[in-house]
Amino acid sequence: MSAVAHPMFVHPLGEDAALIPRTPDLAEPYHAVLSANLARLARWEPWALSEGSVADTAGFLRRSAVESLDGDLLPVLIGVRAEGGGWRLVGSSGLKIDRAARAGIIGYWIDESFEGRGLVSRTVTALLDRAFGELGLVRVALYTETANTRSRALATRLGFTEEGVLRRAIAFPGDHRDQVVYGMLAEEWRSRG
Amino acid sequence: MSAVAHPMFVHPLGEDAALIPRTPDLAEPYHAVLSANLARLARWEPWALSEGSVADTAGFLRRSAVESLDGDLLPVLIGVRAEGGGWRLVGSSGLKIDRAARAGIIGYWIDESFEGRGLVSRTVTALLDRAFGELGLVRVALYTETANTRSRALATRLGFTEEGVLRRAIAFPGDHRDQVVYGMLAEEWRSRG
Amino acid sequence: MSAVAHPMFVHPLGEDAALIPRTPDLAEPYHAVLSANLARLARWEPWALSEGSVADTAGFLRRSAVESLDGDLLPVLIGVRAEGGGWRLVGSSGLKIDRAARAGIIGYWIDESFEGRGLVSRTVTALLDRAFGELGLVRVALYTETANTRSRALATRLGFTEEGVLRRAIAFPGDHRDQVVYGMLAEEWRSRG
Amino acid sequence: MSAVAHPMFVHPLGEDAALIPRTPDLAEPYHAVLSANLARLARWEPWALSEGSVADTAGFLRRSAVESLDGDLLPVLIGVRAEGGGWRLVGSSGLKIDRAARAGIIGYWIDESFEGRGLVSRTVTALLDRAFGELGLVRVALYTETANTRSRALATRLGFTEEGVLRRAIAFPGDHRDQVVYGMLAEEWRSRG
Amino acid sequence: MSAVAHPMFVHPLGEDAALIPRTPDLAEPYHAVLSANLARLARWEPWALSEGSVADTAGFLRRSAVESLDGDLLPVLIGVRAEGGGWRLVGSSGLKIDRAARAGIIGYWIDESFEGRGLVSRTVTALLDRAFGELGLVRVALYTETANTRSRALATRLGFTEEGVLRRAIAFPGDHRDQVVYGMLAEEWRSRG
Amino acid sequence: MSAVAHPMFVHPLGEDAALIPRTPDLAEPYHAVLSANLARLARWEPWALSEGSVADTAGFLRRSAVESLDGDLLPVLIGVRAEGGGWRLVGSSGLKIDRAARAGIIGYWIDESFEGRGLVSRTVTALLDRAFGELGLVRVALYTETANTRSRALATRLGFTEEGVLRRAIAFPGDHRDQVVYGMLAEEWRSRG
Repeated sequence: MSAVAHPMFVHPLGEDAALIPRTPDLAEPYHAVLSANLARLARWEPWALSEGSVADTAGFLRRSAVESLDGDLLPVLIGVRAEGGGWRLVGSSGLKIDRAARAGIIGYWIDESFEGRGLVSRTVTALLDRAFGELGLVRVALYTETANTRSRALATRLGFTEEGVLRRAIAFPGDHRDQVVYGMLAEEWRSRG
Repeated sequence: MSAVAHPMFVHPLGEDAALIPRTPDLAEPYHAVLSANLARLARWEPWALSEGSVADTAGFLRRSAVESLDGDLLPVLIGVRAEGGGWRLVGSSGLKIDRAARAGIIGYWIDESFEGRGLVSRTVTALLDRAFGELGLVRVALYTETANTRSRALATRLGFTEEGVLRRAIAFPGDHRDQVVYGMLAEEWRSRG
Repeated sequence: MSAVAHPMFVHPLGEDAALIPRTPDLAEPYHAVLSANLARLARWEPWALSEGSVADTAGFLRRSAVESLDGDLLPVLIGVRAEGGGWRLVGSSGLKIDRAARAGIIGYWIDESFEGRGLVSRTVTALLDRAFGELGLVRVALYTETANTRSRALATRLGFTEEGVLRRAIAFPGDHRDQVVYGMLAEEWRSRG
Repeated sequence: MSAVAHPMFVHPLGEDAALIPRTPDLAEPYHAVLSANLARLARWEPWALSEGSVADTAGFLRRSAVESLDGDLLPVLIGVRAEGGGWRLVGSSGLKIDRAARAGIIGYWIDESFEGRGLVSRTVTALLDRAFGELGLVRVALYTETANTRSRALATRLGFTEEGVLRRAIAFPGDHRDQVVYGMLAEEWRSRG
Repeated sequence: MSAVAHPMFVHPLGEDAALIPRTPDLAEPYHAVLSANLARLARWEPWALSEGSVADTAGFLRRSAVESLDGDLLPVLIGVRAEGGGWRLVGSSGLKIDRAARAGIIGYWIDESFEGRGLVSRTVTALLDRAFGELGLVRVALYTETANTRSRALATRLGFTEEGVLRRAIAFPGDHRDQVVYGMLAEEWRSRG
Repeated sequence: MSAVAHPMFVHPLGEDAALIPRTPDLAEPYHAVLSANLARLARWEPWALSEGSVADTAGFLRRSAVESLDGDLLPVLIGVRAEGGGWRLVGSSGLKIDRAARAGIIGYWIDESFEGRGLVSRTVTALLDRAFGELGLVRVALYTETANTRSRALATRLGFTEEGVLRRAIAFPGDHRDQVVYGMLAEEWRSRG
């Protein structure tokens, strides 16, 4: 399966990349890039320990998209321009939204060979702009394993504040790991240099 | 209510306009432009005879969006750049998709003061490109009242073929009007000059 | 499986035949007659290209019957008197109802060995009587492939008007065929000789 | 509201009367006859103590019809020929079906002015024929208040056996009445003189 | 599988036994005791003729628990103190509730090796106390096969009145058995010696 | 409305108090105690800012109880012995369960006049015993507003560890407050003095 998608709607991230709505019609290319990264992701994410079928992926995408319609999630894919047209899918991100609390949580993953181009920074920046702009949130958090230095560096670079460590909050089989919480407030994001 | 929307994802229609996913978070601006046009639309569309609340509009948008997730509809809004940023909503369009038959039906309406700028032509062109491209349809139809000269002219200008007249197929209270069917085939669209 | 049914309620079509409500309790005899005709029906109907189980048929009948309760469909079976009592099922018909448009669409199929007895004519006549009588429709259409001379002859004989040809509207795998639309108006049906 | 119905399907009960499927499209005529009898029925039936709207009646009819599709109920209306055509609704009956136990329970009510014509006897006879014939039940019961001499006489006349008295099983507000159970077995029905 | 449960909430039946809410988290120990008794129960209960999986049992327990939330059932398990702590499951009981009629029906079964300790008597007593106390029922029935002398003796001992025999009301494959109905009224239960 | 409940099942908290399953049949007494405390709770809990009807409360209790059946919540009420029998409801508590993460979150509130008797300590202790015992969780958290000194003292007294402060995580209208997270690990709970 190819990981190239031809979405109708995009959100440009500069010239070479874009965010794409994460919808069920993209089940096949999304499954392709997910499968290629699953073993690596299982280092950090318990959900990556089991591999599903394309139909499972389609079901997951549909549920996410319905949450999006209900204003509880902003699910996106990260694409870079493909040679023959369309966008090669290289990662996924999402903003979980708690409307009552006006708070959000950002998560993401990216294909190993596309690390280092600032794609995740641009993605998280776009989601924070949306969260603190149109969506009117007052707080966005980012949770990661304490040992995940790459994610922690990203959070720090973007100006998040480390707020605490939830001990044993990430459950791998027989191995419960500590999770660090980073928080960004609306006024902090707006006043960054 | 203002009809200006700030969508995350768009499909540009040239510099000044764009198609926007027709999703429930846009219920307020969509309701505003719909309400402003309802009396005029009721000349051609029986559904425009009754006016609903913003909540009704939100419900309609959610149902449409779910159909979209299921691949049965491509619902879009037509926006033009608003002065202070964002997109002023000026019309609505959609492609109903019968996947088994690989056939679609296009519908649309536009605010009166935005007629004459080619916005509907650009919208229908974009939907036909999508229908015969990524979606792989073999046929797209356009139905309109026989007396609707503006819509008939558009269909002709875009290269649709008049295929027949369904007598009394449009039901207004006490008044059943004839409906003309226009059809476009994939190979016709691809080979247009 | 035998195709003989013992329904409680019938609508007589003369002495030898009757229309029977198409309900899920008739899944077994209906499946029997459907299976016997499937290969032949696949000449005209894409849905006949794949064969389901009795459970699939029961599911289809239940969904149809629920549509009937909601006033969106009038699904019937065509039966002829069986020797030992009951009705041998020999065909199926239905009137799809668009209540908003006060319009309907009639479809049907019949076992090959029961063609030529006027059973389809009697069935369509009964459905048109119902459509333009109790149901108050203003228009009923009949769609068939342009190459289906038998169906076209029936439509003409019953007084339908040919209204147009929808090109490529019937999708077989790798083969998209033209579909002719016939229409009958309430006043035409009432005033026929 | 008139209590005349124009059903497509009927089950004749002699020349002058018929059973009619109890479906939601008959909500208006059924509600008319029900309303006219409600006060009288409240003598025997706790459900008759509260009067609903036509919409309530339509909802009740739809639920009953869905039970019928699932094989758990056979809901019928009793009609007599109306002068201008159609059937005047004069009563209602039903056979509740416990498929696991292959057992049923019959209930009914009839308009006061149509008592004494044998309509209930004919209705119950038709339902017993169906229950012990096509439906393959082994037992059908009939429950009534011990003080309901008319119903008890009917049960006895049709050959039911009195099987017991369930004390206080019928709950009226502040008044719990005894209920007598009559049973009919398949072999008894088949061998009646 | 062990039949020992560790419920959070119990209803003591003396020192050595208790009633336990019959909830889906107890699927495994309940399935263990049910499986061990199924062949014996099939002497009296048609549902015991087929054996399901633990997942089937969990589904059954969930449906029962939802009925309980809706006030239509009071489903309990019978436990005796297990040696290492917790409760060994030895039987099951339930009170079906017809709120409109303010009437209930009690059923139960118990592991053979725990018969004779009065556990069923204590269980039924607790359910009758609840039925005629907090739940405000006016009547509770107990149905059993006429040949089930043990159950009949229990009903008599607790003061139930034999009210009738429903002939052939219990359907085994090819064998329809008579069912005796016992009834208890609220005032009888309250005034027992 | 009285806040006295008569549950069938309880979990004793010493002689004078008990935990009671929080089920919809207790809607009336629960609503009574909730209403009496709502204004005070609104100091700390945004959900307490709006008051619902008894039907709203019943709906909330039903949803909670269904979550409980699915193993996602352990919802309890806190009762003290009432004079005439039964339990006077004086508070509510719950353990939210994330089965994938084997982690839980405890919440609670208590009537002002029952503070100071150790009822909350006993409740939280019982829920922690359950969480780290039968339910097999590895971590339980407790979230409270940083200004809530009473709750913070309780967490500290029970041995929870303060893990961090989520800034602005509690949204009151126009006022976003900081939330402190306390965590307890299974091994910490088991090894406490």
